[in-house]
Amino acid sequence: MSLIDNIVVSGGTHGNERTGVCLVKKWMENPTCYESLCKSARVELVFANPEAVRLNRRYRDFDMNRAFSQTCLDVSAEPQQYEFRRARELNRIYGPKGPDTKTDLILDVHNTGSNMGLCLILSARDPFTMKASAVLTQEFDDAWIYYQPEERSASPYFGTVAKADVCIEIGPQQHGTLDARLFERTEKLVKRYLELADEWNRGELQKRPPIPVKVYTQLRDLGYPKAWTGAPIEAMIHPDLLGRDYRELRKGDKLFRTFDGKDILYEGEADGRESVWPIFINEPAYYEKDIAMSLTVKSVEMW
Amino acid sequence: MSLIDNIVVSGGTHGNERTGVCLVKKWMENPTCYESLCKSARVELVFANPEAVRLNRRYRDFDMNRAFSQTCLDVSAEPQQYEFRRARELNRIYGPKGPDTKTDLILDVHNTGSNMGLCLILSARDPFTMKASAVLTQEFDDAWIYYQPEERSASPYFGTVAKADVCIEIGPQQHGTLDARLFERTEKLVKRYLELADEWNRGELQKRPPIPVKVYTQLRDLGYPKAWTGAPIEAMIHPDLLGRDYRELRKGDKLFRTFDGKDILYEGEADGRESVWPIFINEPAYYEKDIAMSLTVKSVEMW
Repeated sequence: MSLIDNIVVSGGTHGNERTGVCLVKKWMENPTCYESLCKSARVELVFANPEAVRLNRRYRDFDMNRAFSQTCLDVSAEPQQYEFRRARELNRIYGPKGPDTKTDLILDVHNTGSNMGLCLILSARDPFTMKASAVLTQEFDDAWIYYQPEERSASPYFGTVAKADVCIEIGPQQHGTLDARLFERTEKLVKRYLELADEWNRGELQKRPPIPVKVYTQLRDLGYPKAWTGAPIEAMIHPDLLGRDYRELRKGDKLFRTFDGKDILYEGEADGRESVWPIFINEPAYYEKDIAMSLTVKSVEMW
Repeated sequence: MSLIDNIVVSGGTHGNERTGVCLVKKWMENPTCYESLCKSARVELVFANPEAVRLNRRYRDFDMNRAFSQTCLDVSAEPQQYEFRRARELNRIYGPKGPDTKTDLILDVHNTGSNMGLCLILSARDPFTMKASAVLTQEFDDAWIYYQPEERSASPYFGTVAKADVCIEIGPQQHGTLDARLFERTEKLVKRYLELADEWNRGELQKRPPIPVKVYTQLRDLGYPKAWTGAPIEAMIHPDLLGRDYRELRKGDKLFRTFDGKDILYEGEADGRESVWPIFINEPAYYEKDIAMSLTVKSVEMW
């Protein structure tokens, strides 16, 4: 990325993830909270899914943060479902998704019920988001980098409407609630991204020496044990694993517990890999997606 | 209560409180889990709100566990909202609410996101539920007694369709999820209630010596700071209070934190009382009811 001219800070992409909702609301009512942090760029605020915010639900008709693939945006007929319509509207305002987008950077604030701290999700190896996020892992003791590479036009996330994006996942926080400590840490984190964007525009961030970072790269999602697709789940996250996001899970470790009290062990990957690092463990919103956790691989890189 | 002839164990009165849902499902599929525990009574299992269970939501149209007051049940026209119809149906099957009810005891299993352990909610000073619950506070180190007295015909809870009831609130568990340790403890607890009902029917439970119990009696619900009814909340639970259910809150203690980082202190009660014991702190389902927590008073009684 060259200069960052336009930044969007969004909350309420999922309506019951209140940290972002309340942060955007606070900043809309008090622009002095943010307007001096990155004077070299235009900073806009948005409630991405106001209808879901009103309902205090993740979404009304469809998960909007799965509606931004180029295919979804390109469908010719006007969609029936609210979130598809709103996704197109956001794409008109802040996009259009692709090389001609009006927006350089989207910071999209989410919550997770999983024990993930301040999780910085990068969808691409963009120089600014990598360097800034690396800096933030030095400044915040519970900041983590989750790299989820995906072909940008196929990616369904709101952030991919911009040239670069960070999906900021804050947890653990129960959906529909607020945690004051997490709110305050999130506000500090988002402010730092804006300051670092300014540092980038001055050409200084690029000059910082390389920073060693632990990178958790998406491997695959893991579902709950079920007899067949759509059947009720037959086991729960194992108590020994609950809350242990980013920790190594080795072949033979306890993975699930059945309702009869039997342990189900992790058997390793089909390709012979024997260690993974689970995240999004027991995330409430992912039960309907049949995701018990996302498995990542950990590496150390210089960013 | 004299003999306990009919017991109903219910789950899914709120559809996204999965401990009870999965317990009832497990027992329906494996009657040997429970059928020998209380041979002196008929034990029935029910998914109280199957439509909400299907949706994995608290309710579809209306909170069903606020639909069992005599006034709600007596409305002459057939209600439009699903939960009012289902409440009437449950009342026909297990009631009718009042002295002629077919059901002696309802054990209704719920979850809360608050840090409430195994909370045994008693709605009346019924001899069996008092004695059995007192025994369980001795057997389970995180069992608590919450006494919420209310005129029975006015009470809106499903359990009040029976002569006696315990609303079993298990937490902390995020709505829509499962926690294996809590599931296993809940199953043990419900089994013990059935065994104690059998002990009661043999006339033995009554002969146990009095047990000292800490009783948390409902004083009032406390809302979030707001400019006016229906306005967005203006503060969060204070970080020092979060998760501290059943602990004493004294006049001058920190209660809320505003989005600007200011502390709001507890000012005591209007009648001069200077200590309360909050529970249901930050319960997700109570944001829409504008309940930040329930304030109780603590006493020690011999049960």
